[in-house]
Amino acid sequence: MRQFINAKEDMVTEAIDGAIAASGGTLTRLDGYPHIRVVVRTDWDKSKVALVTGGGSGHEPAHVGFVGQGMLAAAVCGDVFASPSADAVLAGILAVTGSAGCLLIVKNYTGDRLNFGLAAERARAFGLNVFMVIVDDDVALPELPQARGLAGTLFVHKIAGAMAENGATLEDCAAVAMRVVASSRSIGMSLDTCTVPGAIKEDRIPDGMVELGLGIHGEAGVEQVAAGGAKDAIAKVSEKLVATMSAKPHVALINNLGGSSVLEMSILTSAFVASPLGALTELMVGPDAMMTAIDMHGFSISVMELASGDDALLTQPVDCPGWPGCHRVTKSNVLPLPDGLSPIRAPASAHAKTQAFLTGCCEVLIASEQDLNLLDAKSGDGDTGSTLASASRALIDAMDRLPLADHTQLYRAIGLELSQTMGGSSGVLLAIFFAASGDASSSGLPMTQALKMGLDRMRQIGGANPGDRTMVDALLPALTALKDGMPKAAAAARKGADYTATLTSAKAGRATYINAEQLKGHVDPGAEAVARLFAHLALG
Amino acid sequence: MRQFINAKEDMVTEAIDGAIAASGGTLTRLDGYPHIRVVVRTDWDKSKVALVTGGGSGHEPAHVGFVGQGMLAAAVCGDVFASPSADAVLAGILAVTGSAGCLLIVKNYTGDRLNFGLAAERARAFGLNVFMVIVDDDVALPELPQARGLAGTLFVHKIAGAMAENGATLEDCAAVAMRVVASSRSIGMSLDTCTVPGAIKEDRIPDGMVELGLGIHGEAGVEQVAAGGAKDAIAKVSEKLVATMSAKPHVALINNLGGSSVLEMSILTSAFVASPLGALTELMVGPDAMMTAIDMHGFSISVMELASGDDALLTQPVDCPGWPGCHRVTKSNVLPLPDGLSPIRAPASAHAKTQAFLTGCCEVLIASEQDLNLLDAKSGDGDTGSTLASASRALIDAMDRLPLADHTQLYRAIGLELSQTMGGSSGVLLAIFFAASGDASSSGLPMTQALKMGLDRMRQIGGANPGDRTMVDALLPALTALKDGMPKAAAAARKGADYTATLTSAKAGRATYINAEQLKGHVDPGAEAVARLFAHLALG
Repeated sequence: MRQFINAKEDMVTEAIDGAIAASGGTLTRLDGYPHIRVVVRTDWDKSKVALVTGGGSGHEPAHVGFVGQGMLAAAVCGDVFASPSADAVLAGILAVTGSAGCLLIVKNYTGDRLNFGLAAERARAFGLNVFMVIVDDDVALPELPQARGLAGTLFVHKIAGAMAENGATLEDCAAVAMRVVASSRSIGMSLDTCTVPGAIKEDRIPDGMVELGLGIHGEAGVEQVAAGGAKDAIAKVSEKLVATMSAKPHVALINNLGGSSVLEMSILTSAFVASPLGALTELMVGPDAMMTAIDMHGFSISVMELASGDDALLTQPVDCPGWPGCHRVTKSNVLPLPDGLSPIRAPASAHAKTQAFLTGCCEVLIASEQDLNLLDAKSGDGDTGSTLASASRALIDAMDRLPLADHTQLYRAIGLELSQTMGGSSGVLLAIFFAASGDASSSGLPMTQALKMGLDRMRQIGGANPGDRTMVDALLPALTALKDGMPKAAAAARKGADYTATLTSAKAGRATYINAEQLKGHVDPGAEAVARLFAHLALG
Repeated sequence: MRQFINAKEDMVTEAIDGAIAASGGTLTRLDGYPHIRVVVRTDWDKSKVALVTGGGSGHEPAHVGFVGQGMLAAAVCGDVFASPSADAVLAGILAVTGSAGCLLIVKNYTGDRLNFGLAAERARAFGLNVFMVIVDDDVALPELPQARGLAGTLFVHKIAGAMAENGATLEDCAAVAMRVVASSRSIGMSLDTCTVPGAIKEDRIPDGMVELGLGIHGEAGVEQVAAGGAKDAIAKVSEKLVATMSAKPHVALINNLGGSSVLEMSILTSAFVASPLGALTELMVGPDAMMTAIDMHGFSISVMELASGDDALLTQPVDCPGWPGCHRVTKSNVLPLPDGLSPIRAPASAHAKTQAFLTGCCEVLIASEQDLNLLDAKSGDGDTGSTLASASRALIDAMDRLPLADHTQLYRAIGLELSQTMGGSSGVLLAIFFAASGDASSSGLPMTQALKMGLDRMRQIGGANPGDRTMVDALLPALTALKDGMPKAAAAARKGADYTATLTSAKAGRATYINAEQLKGHVDPGAEAVARLFAHLALG
């Protein structure tokens, strides 16, 4: 099973139950399972015009996701891609329709027209005032006498829904719904067909091709054309739509047919805004999955010419999980980059003793290049020695631009040099070590404590604990012992480094990927470097 | 190209531009393309604690979709599945951080820790107060020392974001963020890997298997198990999570990893509510795509133990397109079916003349069975005659329960009988014809006009126009001529029926699928039936 479903026959009722459970109490349903699947608002009192719609399932979040304050009063769900029965539609109408009447919104498919139409007749026999509007927004086949109903249906839900919420009469809602239908156009494009649960997926669209003008039931599109990326896709869709549009401002709805990633939908939106279609667009709904063909890897764009008052109705807040909101298309004012990205360099200053100290440390690491590389070859890619040696050489070269006489600034300056000259994680970690030590030093802490603070911060970022087979195993005991003098610190560092040779599982850094047998008996190269540095300092 | 993208290197900036264009002016970005990709709120004045996060792209809507009032102040975007640079993170921090400080939220991946960590150090060197919290909510490998950061990160964004919006200090936000991280757990499951743009899609998960405990970068999960549908998927995920959870109330976040259909997510949610996990859940976020792995056909569930005050913070409204809201898990009270689904039957009444009239009509259709079937074989499946004949036989059998003496009710009663005994579209259409005629008759219209109203309604629902090669081609002229007497009506019906033999393209009904040559010279069987009925009535 290549889908997260259970029994095929339970699919629709389970999906409805899921949507109701996630609604926070705004939705419920009629007690008509399995044949009558009608979702209704829990807050509905029949005092206003009731918008009722529905159709086959497989278009989620349509239609259940649009039931709620400001949109639908009820949604009637058929099986996947099959109209609900007239009985089910009638149940929906009767459940929510009061004296204000019912606007029945039907997408232009024969089964839906017949079942919704018959249900409307039966409801009228009860004296209910039902107006049925048929949505046929598809422009894929301009000469087709019976254009399909696609995502443009959502404009009817939203605009007539807002009117109904605001207390408009059925007559007014119906007139506007008819006008919305007349001024809505949609077209879809997809890279693949959809997976109808329980059916073999049709492999209709070859790799490298895209289908234009397809519906929301997996039916074939009008043409297959070469796939040319997001901009090209929007250009093709734009061309079809713009040919049918006036030059007046429009609202556009960017619909994910189910299987496009959010990343792709955003890229398509970016192309949309830059297209001729975007130039005609004042308001935008989405991008989001609103009227899907289950998992179809495609999108559709619906447009509608805006009339006076539509703006307020489209942007009026609703309480439906499926509606992503309608926003004005705005050009953003890109903000300048903040100051401070070029690091502040403390003024260079000379200090012979410090220069000698630093140079000595660097020379120890340069001299250890070969040994450390060999150790690293046991647990990594054999470059720890070279990485440290070249950073050391660079630091020696940088000596005359360092603030050698200002030890607090010196920490930060060394951190900065290392972050720029030393590659990989270790460069960043040492940069953090020195920067944080500098912070601590500038707040008045003595060197030993400042270095401990640097180590803490480095460990927080790097995530290394003692025993994880990293330089921390030497550095932590060394800094802890430092208060008792450099020889004690050096002894602690050596002991810590040697200890890493007994550790057969690394828990941080790259050595985590190496098995125990390979690690055994070899000191961690970072810890070894620390031990050699402290040994040198103990001599001085 | 199997994705809606343009050049791979423009993917992230284009997606950001799309998200900004769709934001309705709430989002903008820093002027640092292509390397510095930072999205910020346009309404941000630095007076409150700034939440900053980010990481690799490919997780849309994370993180840009969570920038906005009540959540993030800025999101820093890396390449797909790659950390942004320390420079980019620093730019984000500097752009939005004022004296209230910055809460830096980082998912537990080495690259993110290092770059965000270094940026935090550099920001601190400017005197900014930055607290970095690392999210490690993955429970796939309980023994893993470095658990990954998954969708549980969103709990931090939401809860700390609401606190910051309400004016909390950085210290308080940080403390709560740490508590949220400590009490959050996530696990993912997928039927397929993800498509990294420009890379070959790994075919790792065999058909019939599902992967449990996988991350959000396409990395392999902890185990592959047999796929057993939605309930089984939730049971497996529930088992892993419940083992780590307290018995206290939790919030759960149901996340689409990108490629699951909305239908599947609702079915999973239904299974979730019924699972042991659902029993521990008081609040629910989603289902929705929030932290994706591009187009991965899977889901993840994140849970967090609720502490006092979390409820209000989680449900506090936000202005971010990515946040689907947090709702109480409620059991809905299923509503009883409305009265009226069992059709009202008018009391039977005798009326010899009407009975003879109706019986005569029925007998004409029964006698025409063979002829009409032969005609239908030319354009359909050859059953029009049988369909009409069996409906006629059923109507004769029903005669003694019809309200024969009440002609207004009789229309509706005939419509009801036909809708129950006659299959297919034609049964529904004739039922609508008689029901609407009955409506018109009950409002006082004379028979001719009532039947015209019925025809209008039938045409609206069926979508057939004159010349579309349907029964309308005979019925419309007949009803129009009826005011001049039955013989004129019969002549008009016959002329209309014969006219259909000249129509070579059907525009409504099933004959639309038949080519011109096949249709030529054959009268439409529905029109023929109408002509024969009127011919019979003209005799009487």
